[in-house]
Amino acid sequence: MNNSLTMQLVGEFFGTIILILLGDGACASVNLNKSKAKASGWIVISLGWGFAVTFGVYCVSWLSPGHFNPAVTLGMAIAHKTAWSAVLPYMLAQVAGGFVGGILVWLTYYPHWAETDDQSAILGTFATVPAIRNYLWNFVTELMATFVLVYGLLAMSKTPFAPGLNPLLAGFLIAAVLLSLGGPTGAAMNPARDLGPRLAHQFMPIANKGDSDWAYSWVPIVAPLAGGTIAGLLFTVLA
Amino acid sequence: MNNSLTMQLVGEFFGTIILILLGDGACASVNLNKSKAKASGWIVISLGWGFAVTFGVYCVSWLSPGHFNPAVTLGMAIAHKTAWSAVLPYMLAQVAGGFVGGILVWLTYYPHWAETDDQSAILGTFATVPAIRNYLWNFVTELMATFVLVYGLLAMSKTPFAPGLNPLLAGFLIAAVLLSLGGPTGAAMNPARDLGPRLAHQFMPIANKGDSDWAYSWVPIVAPLAGGTIAGLLFTVLA
Amino acid sequence: MNNSLTMQLVGEFFGTIILILLGDGACASVNLNKSKAKASGWIVISLGWGFAVTFGVYCVSWLSPGHFNPAVTLGMAIAHKTAWSAVLPYMLAQVAGGFVGGILVWLTYYPHWAETDDQSAILGTFATVPAIRNYLWNFVTELMATFVLVYGLLAMSKTPFAPGLNPLLAGFLIAAVLLSLGGPTGAAMNPARDLGPRLAHQFMPIANKGDSDWAYSWVPIVAPLAGGTIAGLLFTVLA
Amino acid sequence: MNNSLTMQLVGEFFGTIILILLGDGACASVNLNKSKAKASGWIVISLGWGFAVTFGVYCVSWLSPGHFNPAVTLGMAIAHKTAWSAVLPYMLAQVAGGFVGGILVWLTYYPHWAETDDQSAILGTFATVPAIRNYLWNFVTELMATFVLVYGLLAMSKTPFAPGLNPLLAGFLIAAVLLSLGGPTGAAMNPARDLGPRLAHQFMPIANKGDSDWAYSWVPIVAPLAGGTIAGLLFTVLA
Repeated sequence: MNNSLTMQLVGEFFGTIILILLGDGACASVNLNKSKAKASGWIVISLGWGFAVTFGVYCVSWLSPGHFNPAVTLGMAIAHKTAWSAVLPYMLAQVAGGFVGGILVWLTYYPHWAETDDQSAILGTFATVPAIRNYLWNFVTELMATFVLVYGLLAMSKTPFAPGLNPLLAGFLIAAVLLSLGGPTGAAMNPARDLGPRLAHQFMPIANKGDSDWAYSWVPIVAPLAGGTIAGLLFTVLA
Repeated sequence: MNNSLTMQLVGEFFGTIILILLGDGACASVNLNKSKAKASGWIVISLGWGFAVTFGVYCVSWLSPGHFNPAVTLGMAIAHKTAWSAVLPYMLAQVAGGFVGGILVWLTYYPHWAETDDQSAILGTFATVPAIRNYLWNFVTELMATFVLVYGLLAMSKTPFAPGLNPLLAGFLIAAVLLSLGGPTGAAMNPARDLGPRLAHQFMPIANKGDSDWAYSWVPIVAPLAGGTIAGLLFTVLA
Repeated sequence: MNNSLTMQLVGEFFGTIILILLGDGACASVNLNKSKAKASGWIVISLGWGFAVTFGVYCVSWLSPGHFNPAVTLGMAIAHKTAWSAVLPYMLAQVAGGFVGGILVWLTYYPHWAETDDQSAILGTFATVPAIRNYLWNFVTELMATFVLVYGLLAMSKTPFAPGLNPLLAGFLIAAVLLSLGGPTGAAMNPARDLGPRLAHQFMPIANKGDSDWAYSWVPIVAPLAGGTIAGLLFTVLA
Repeated sequence: MNNSLTMQLVGEFFGTIILILLGDGACASVNLNKSKAKASGWIVISLGWGFAVTFGVYCVSWLSPGHFNPAVTLGMAIAHKTAWSAVLPYMLAQVAGGFVGGILVWLTYYPHWAETDDQSAILGTFATVPAIRNYLWNFVTELMATFVLVYGLLAMSKTPFAPGLNPLLAGFLIAAVLLSLGGPTGAAMNPARDLGPRLAHQFMPIANKGDSDWAYSWVPIVAPLAGGTIAGLLFTVLA
């Protein structure tokens, strides 16, 4: 990227908006009452998030590298692929994008919140909710899932790709981790993906919403950063 | 495109027929009684529409740019990628193609209409039906979905693609928006996709059909055009 | 193809075996009692047949053009892409491959036939069974589906593809037609795909099998040939 | 591969870990109680395993050829694409990777085992369990499935692929065989995929686990090796 940091931050901000609009949109699609895709299952969630990454990247491809994820940015910095000076600004832009994306999901599905009485389904549209609450093991799951994601993205930088193919594969990698490792926690794998929309859930007047569950919120922040760190270190050793 | 406008219009007309035959076909497949794919879910609808775009584009790739959608044509014109003089003719060819495509879906599924007593399922095979009727918010949803589609297509024009790959990704973009943002309105995102087959529903002697719901029909016309306009403008700023 | 006709026929024969083993295998997977994929739905059938084409083509890519389908061969001949002298030999090799493929499906799922008491589900694993029996309209459906398939394949010959991409897209085209137009008849679109395994159903001692329904068998032979002919003619006009 | 054998073995070991973590992870995702993807069906299993191969390959692309499967290694050796001297070391690295991958799945889904009372569902997360136990016919199914896999991979070596595309197609081939031929036995197609995690099931203190079913374990070892051998021989004849 030869863009100015400002342009890169515009890219990370806007791309994360698209990521969350489509990704959390897939959760809304499956979770909310009266949605035409109600209960259409894990394949919709997984492919929805995968494509959310793919098209988020295309949407800002000439502006930023398309991380949309502090854990990815951290892993990339450790592997010397992103300047350390960009790390904190990127992270802030990503969380801000996640917040705005959450608001857009709220607006896009506006009439459906009032029809949905399950508070956990509503929160689960914005942020991740563990299937079995256990901070230690939820942490392990998120660390493992993020490790696979960030290591996979780093490894893919060693593969030459035909033009335009890489974002599709990056999306399929997200879908793969969700299909396989998303069962216990929903696999946030991304502090901005969880914190940003959780803030939207907290501050927006969403009908029928309950608690924003801040007690759990550190897990999908700390564990992905740990997983991204390990991925960056291991890649540096192996590559 | 160095083709004559006539050839381009043949392409838009014929490609939109294929789009609607396959896209509304997927709706028929899932909605109609006794169909082998009855109730097979949102993944079938979403991938069905996605592939409908992909193969519609291949089917006329040497004739027209494969918009099949007045909102796309408008956004492309705003972004200086389509001549303004082509906009209205394209739109008319697209709506005409949508009308013929609707008739072909009717014929392809001919014996199934008489077996289907749900008038809303029949209308929903041709045109979009909102899950919760609310013109304001249905408008917002359609605007948002179309914005992502048209902005995404414009953004993809900045990415070099390996030969033949672009139409597949364009189809996946349609699938992505449907998976994620299709829950409230079915995400028409395309005036021709909604108006053309709605006209077929109005005028063809379809067994068991009910009202064509013209009261709602302006939403999937005006909102996509608005979304495409915003996408074209934003892309012009960012690109 | 600069291969001898014999090598081409080996390719068509062996590739059609793979096509039917994987395609009818997907039907067995969904239809037969105690299968781990029992009732897993239309997405499995559609992607199963799509990938069956994709990998059938790769499996014989250096031997034959990978039609595996008399309707495709006929359309290709009409569009001057296959020599007329090859048409009949290709068709025979394809039907023979379909017969052997049907036998392999029978063996692969051997213990499951005795556990399946639905004779229609068993026949439907080998050959197509219409959802609503109506020879005229079943013919129309098969003609329409095959037209889209063969026209689409011909149109894709006008698009340059990155190396190795074409067979994937050809498979997705099959999946697309099945997702969208497969509801009424299962969309054979291919005389060899229907006749070959129907012969295997007739002659193999399959547990619990019933009638092979020869009364219907002409529809998935004649209608695809008609659809392929129209596709070949229209492509010759448009291209 | 110009790497030292040691680096190749690191690649096969680490790649097989990723394969099993994602592949058996997909089984856990669908099988285990309280998983968010519980009962989400065969499409999740099939695509999960397919992407497990795709991303396993990318993860070690610069280290090893990415077999992760003794049956593939054997078939490649027979077809003169892998040195015979590498065969046994590769196999050992693959089984060791399968063992570690099984342990990681256990840890990733840790709280879910105690919530799952179906011992067969737990074993089926690690190793394959036949739908209908019949050693002869289970052998035939595994042989057939592995033949298609290994022959398909060998055939794909004859197709030039755009950069980065081959691992995606290899993953889709796995998905294809699972969709179509996975119904009777779950289609291990890979001794390391079955034996490695079965050892993990045997030796790890997994809550609620039952017997590791060693009586069946020879089938997904011997049949894939036989299928890979036949595939290697046939390819040598045809190619």
